[in-house]
Amino acid sequence: MPREITAFSNPLIKRVRNLRDKKHRREEGLFLAEGLRILTEAREAGRVPEYLFYSKESAGHELVRALVVATERAGGEAIETNADILSKLSGKDNPGAVVGVYPEFTRRLDSLDRMASPIWLVAERLRDPGNLGTILRTGDAVGAGGLILLDDCVDPFSVEAVRASMGALFTVPVARASWDEFVLWLRAGAGELVGLSLDTEHDYKAPAYQAPTFLLTGNEAQGMPDFMATECDLLVKIPMLGKADSLNAAVATAVMAYEVLSQHRS
Amino acid sequence: MPREITAFSNPLIKRVRNLRDKKHRREEGLFLAEGLRILTEAREAGRVPEYLFYSKESAGHELVRALVVATERAGGEAIETNADILSKLSGKDNPGAVVGVYPEFTRRLDSLDRMASPIWLVAERLRDPGNLGTILRTGDAVGAGGLILLDDCVDPFSVEAVRASMGALFTVPVARASWDEFVLWLRAGAGELVGLSLDTEHDYKAPAYQAPTFLLTGNEAQGMPDFMATECDLLVKIPMLGKADSLNAAVATAVMAYEVLSQHRS
Repeated sequence: MPREITAFSNPLIKRVRNLRDKKHRREEGLFLAEGLRILTEAREAGRVPEYLFYSKESAGHELVRALVVATERAGGEAIETNADILSKLSGKDNPGAVVGVYPEFTRRLDSLDRMASPIWLVAERLRDPGNLGTILRTGDAVGAGGLILLDDCVDPFSVEAVRASMGALFTVPVARASWDEFVLWLRAGAGELVGLSLDTEHDYKAPAYQAPTFLLTGNEAQGMPDFMATECDLLVKIPMLGKADSLNAAVATAVMAYEVLSQHRS
Repeated sequence: MPREITAFSNPLIKRVRNLRDKKHRREEGLFLAEGLRILTEAREAGRVPEYLFYSKESAGHELVRALVVATERAGGEAIETNADILSKLSGKDNPGAVVGVYPEFTRRLDSLDRMASPIWLVAERLRDPGNLGTILRTGDAVGAGGLILLDDCVDPFSVEAVRASMGALFTVPVARASWDEFVLWLRAGAGELVGLSLDTEHDYKAPAYQAPTFLLTGNEAQGMPDFMATECDLLVKIPMLGKADSLNAAVATAVMAYEVLSQHRS
């Protein structure tokens, strides 16, 4: 039977609330996800929360019941609570019906099967959690093999990144590596490294991309450093017709990824 | 000579700080933009602030000086202040060197020249200011004639939207209209209305788009209502290979816009 928590002072509530901070996520190895749609996506991908919080009002909802059953079956705990506490946990005035606490999971590079997909997304020093989540969402849509985060990227388990991913954090493999580790792994097998750059004359639609294509997106403000650009098999740019010199990083990644997808499909 | 303000209690500081709220923006007809890059982009597009705040430390910077000169020449006021006040005005811990207060400006539909560009972006009930700003930034990049905001969209002059637009708010014309006004205006001239939809079999790469193309993006959560879809000359979808059923709205708009651009250019 689910237990009920309605007191803000409950130590578990405090502990879960703290997962909004990276420091506590690192210590606990846990992160927060919220909303029925995202938690259901997670469940369908085989990810079940250690703690599931749901409001009394939503207890009868079929998808909430399915989450409660899955959580308890996997040894987690389902906890009935109220809208105020859900709001405190999610940091939103209008919280979703559910909040889940999940163990963090990232993949090691050597556990990835590069032939599993013709497209892989790679980002270096990505700073914005919304961009990271949006890139994961795009990765899901183009059937990317995974997202490889290089060097000092923002935390993919931050509340903002999880939210922007709309559940793709649970369906798209995420690996973290240093640039050196990545290059070693990449060059040990098949694969073309394609960098998005502003300093090239090659239009992104010109090349015939070779699978597996590893699409490298650089830091939002600075782009990728020269030594990374030099390592790329191909540098391409997206035409910019206006006054601005760059696109949003998640947008640029998506425009490129759909071009590669389109080539691989035809 | 620029005056100096270093007191949080100064009434102008309070008034400007309040522009972070939509209600005060509506009352004053003013909005906030921040950062040297965005304000310089604005200046180059002929938009000069009514009030320009800059820190003592940045007063010697060439671009800051250019902004001070342009502001005073246009009858605005340049105000030297400190990092704490800039931080309060921008709401960021690490504020940029400058904050500007600008008069709001939107265009009326009948002031737009639809033949000025082969691509126009149209959004209905867009809720997320980051998406709105990102769509403006993409609009600049693809050389869109403008962004037309239909019905109850989020405020393009919110701090988040201005920030995400990276200056494109100043370079891409923005019009606001109701759906009915838009359809009347649209059908009084040339133009193809293309809707992004999940409920169609038409791949976005299949049609030969006719200029001017009006790309309609629906609300983030619900997409566009049926009566809008019915009005579209063409409904197209972007392939989704994964578990998720949709892309981020700004991403979907960009993938479409670059396909249309690519067709019009070749």
